[in-house]
Amino acid sequence: MCVLREAEMRQSSTANEGPIAKGYDLSASRWGRWVTEVLRGQAQVDFLPSALAGVVFSIALFVAGWQFGLYGLIGAAVGTGTAHLLGVDRSRLEAGLEGFNSCLVGVACAVFLDADHLSTLLVAVAASAAVTVVTAATARVLGTWGLPTFTLPFCLTASALTVAAPSFRHVWHLEDGIAALPRTASGPTALTFTDLWHAFFTNIGEIFLMPQWYVGLIFLVGIFVADRRLGALACAGSAVAILTSWALGAPADQVREGLMGYDAVLVAMALGGVFLITDAWSVGYALVGAVTSTVLSPALGALFAPSGGHAFTWPFVLVALVFLVAAPAFPRLRRADG
Amino acid sequence: MCVLREAEMRQSSTANEGPIAKGYDLSASRWGRWVTEVLRGQAQVDFLPSALAGVVFSIALFVAGWQFGLYGLIGAAVGTGTAHLLGVDRSRLEAGLEGFNSCLVGVACAVFLDADHLSTLLVAVAASAAVTVVTAATARVLGTWGLPTFTLPFCLTASALTVAAPSFRHVWHLEDGIAALPRTASGPTALTFTDLWHAFFTNIGEIFLMPQWYVGLIFLVGIFVADRRLGALACAGSAVAILTSWALGAPADQVREGLMGYDAVLVAMALGGVFLITDAWSVGYALVGAVTSTVLSPALGALFAPSGGHAFTWPFVLVALVFLVAAPAFPRLRRADG
Amino acid sequence: MCVLREAEMRQSSTANEGPIAKGYDLSASRWGRWVTEVLRGQAQVDFLPSALAGVVFSIALFVAGWQFGLYGLIGAAVGTGTAHLLGVDRSRLEAGLEGFNSCLVGVACAVFLDADHLSTLLVAVAASAAVTVVTAATARVLGTWGLPTFTLPFCLTASALTVAAPSFRHVWHLEDGIAALPRTASGPTALTFTDLWHAFFTNIGEIFLMPQWYVGLIFLVGIFVADRRLGALACAGSAVAILTSWALGAPADQVREGLMGYDAVLVAMALGGVFLITDAWSVGYALVGAVTSTVLSPALGALFAPSGGHAFTWPFVLVALVFLVAAPAFPRLRRADG
Repeated sequence: MCVLREAEMRQSSTANEGPIAKGYDLSASRWGRWVTEVLRGQAQVDFLPSALAGVVFSIALFVAGWQFGLYGLIGAAVGTGTAHLLGVDRSRLEAGLEGFNSCLVGVACAVFLDADHLSTLLVAVAASAAVTVVTAATARVLGTWGLPTFTLPFCLTASALTVAAPSFRHVWHLEDGIAALPRTASGPTALTFTDLWHAFFTNIGEIFLMPQWYVGLIFLVGIFVADRRLGALACAGSAVAILTSWALGAPADQVREGLMGYDAVLVAMALGGVFLITDAWSVGYALVGAVTSTVLSPALGALFAPSGGHAFTWPFVLVALVFLVAAPAFPRLRRADG
Repeated sequence: MCVLREAEMRQSSTANEGPIAKGYDLSASRWGRWVTEVLRGQAQVDFLPSALAGVVFSIALFVAGWQFGLYGLIGAAVGTGTAHLLGVDRSRLEAGLEGFNSCLVGVACAVFLDADHLSTLLVAVAASAAVTVVTAATARVLGTWGLPTFTLPFCLTASALTVAAPSFRHVWHLEDGIAALPRTASGPTALTFTDLWHAFFTNIGEIFLMPQWYVGLIFLVGIFVADRRLGALACAGSAVAILTSWALGAPADQVREGLMGYDAVLVAMALGGVFLITDAWSVGYALVGAVTSTVLSPALGALFAPSGGHAFTWPFVLVALVFLVAAPAFPRLRRADG
Repeated sequence: MCVLREAEMRQSSTANEGPIAKGYDLSASRWGRWVTEVLRGQAQVDFLPSALAGVVFSIALFVAGWQFGLYGLIGAAVGTGTAHLLGVDRSRLEAGLEGFNSCLVGVACAVFLDADHLSTLLVAVAASAAVTVVTAATARVLGTWGLPTFTLPFCLTASALTVAAPSFRHVWHLEDGIAALPRTASGPTALTFTDLWHAFFTNIGEIFLMPQWYVGLIFLVGIFVADRRLGALACAGSAVAILTSWALGAPADQVREGLMGYDAVLVAMALGGVFLITDAWSVGYALVGAVTSTVLSPALGALFAPSGGHAFTWPFVLVALVFLVAAPAFPRLRRADG
């Protein structure tokens, strides 16, 4: 029931795909339906049930490196396939909701393990399948409060995997682990114009763990193609994150690489346009959430650092869950699902 | 609905304010109502919906240092104001339930960041506003089991803030971070008479993060003025914490500074007199909880140490939530809300 | 209601005790009933409401060392006794559900503190009593989704205790704490035949924190005596854990000591035979869970290492909860409780 509601909630934005996106809907054949589901899975990382956006996102990943494109597709395909095998509700599959967490797990394996080893491929396939179970679990528990999973299944799986990896010699190919006590910020905080516009795009690329500005730009194009409103919110989230980082004095190189802002982009889209009805109050609420996630970003980094973990999209997930579950207490905000 | 129940639950102890407290109720004017809410917000840190207790608590903070008094008032005012702005249920506001977490966040900023920097003031204001959202979120989730939030919103916000702070150069004004592996206890464990009576009062002062025995004494006076039963329970909790610390061999300086006992004071009040009906069983249950929180205190310290965080009132929150949600399984205990 | 359901759920496997087990049911007298409850408490660590299995498990613990046998019995007895005192529902007591977490807490005290000190005995008694409250709390919260507690109360209590212990000089008798950053795996990963069969049994013994292969063998005999199906699943879980560890390249000495596999044994039993109806799908699901818990094992170790904590059965608890709460999304799996 709750699972269904989430699917419906997100599907309601299917209308945003527009005629061009519809043209890419290959749902005539069974095989075509599956390809559509996998592409939508990639697009749902940014809340878009749009196969076309999935194609653009895939191009962005391949531009960053063929491994990333490949691992992203494999992740989305394995996650969607496992959900089919286990008989998950059709509406979730059609909306691409069974592919976005596994897509990110696949990409994370390519980034944090060594993408050139066969072991990494096997780990990515196994982990992407496991994500299906974690997704069903989080969907049921969070459904108690009418909440979607966001990328919590990805965060749980990727955190477990990266923290465990150095303990397995066939998985970990570096000499040393990365566990360390967190350090105080150092380095310059002044942002040049190049820092600014690089950060604006890398904030969007780092959602998929990619630090190149032009890759972020392609992702942004993908968002705009599928949904101009979400594209505008993504831009607003990125700008707010840069402003917050600059005001608080985050090191310039972290800002430039997008490490301070990808959570804010996701928060701005989720609260400002997907799960709350877009109006002045919800956009304001979303931007406060974007600021909050920018502060949480190094906090989660520091919490995971001593164990050798990463922040992934934990700040986004925590802020989005807290702000969304709190929303009914604030009568000025209206949930998108009625 | 659940949020309402919590407000009602706590409001039922409004009756404990007595005639003197009522004399300070400025609710005639709109401005007076707001001042009452802010003062009750400060008092609700110790479960007291009493503006008079809020005044005494404020005096205690100003005695410890003008910054602490100011930050406490600002925190309570910003939290209450944000809740008004967002349209939070009136009954919560009137009971002071929207001010106690933000009050503690304000004080924590003054203690753990540098109270003399303007940046700290701005961070405190922003964080106190954010607490309103965290409060609504925790109230809704915990309301599923009929639980109040306790100081969980404060713990979440303050933990995030202090762990994140060293990553922002305009926020963190010390040279080094404080992240470190926890160490084994050292130093003498024998308690002198001075240690004993200092600890008795600092256990109450450290609830507001204040380590001076005379400040703790003023806080205790404030509790007794508003509710003698809770005052007696606070004393019992403090005594149990000292006894437990001594028996287990906690270092004397930690006991003297109140670091081992503030959670026990809160647990004793919450379980013995606020959320369970006071009788021999509930007081016994509350004192077992007080012992448990004394053990949890260094445990939480050790869990946060490697990330540079603090225990705050996490031990109290965890013990109070666990003991209260467990209560229906034990027919000898009766919930205060019916 | 939910608490009852769990008891019923587990009690339904009481039928598996068989005629021999029934012979050990001392329920004629009141004293005999209590002894039965305590023994079943020990047996419920492996999901067996069988007093006979409890006797065999107790023998195994005494073979490993008289302290372990004694602390296990004391833990189960104190937990069950506290539950009686607090008036916990009779069906839970009769099924032994109030003794298994406290039994493990008792054994953990003997293993991680110094079993020869009187202080350890007192801590074990107090902690075993506290477990009753933690059990009631977790049973109520998890009951919201129809979930049992598994060994979550043990994990919470033992983690808090071991992380706190070095801060109390009368409790901690070693010179140094054990908090450290996690290290990358080193040492050979090739498994000899001796490694293999030792690991097969120690995987079962480490559920009770015992590293001797012959102790694990006695535990396995105890499982088979009470329930052959669960015995077979325990063997399958142990084998899968060894295979996974070998494939991923876990250090051979960790595999041999059973540290990589005890969670997998519990997961295989819980999902394959206790909480899901045994068939090809649930056994497959259980073995995927067993693989997952083998990966989680070093992850939880790394998460707790910087604070001086241990993994205990956290990987089992997390995997079992996630896989069980996810099950309704997969129509091919059937819950054992209808």
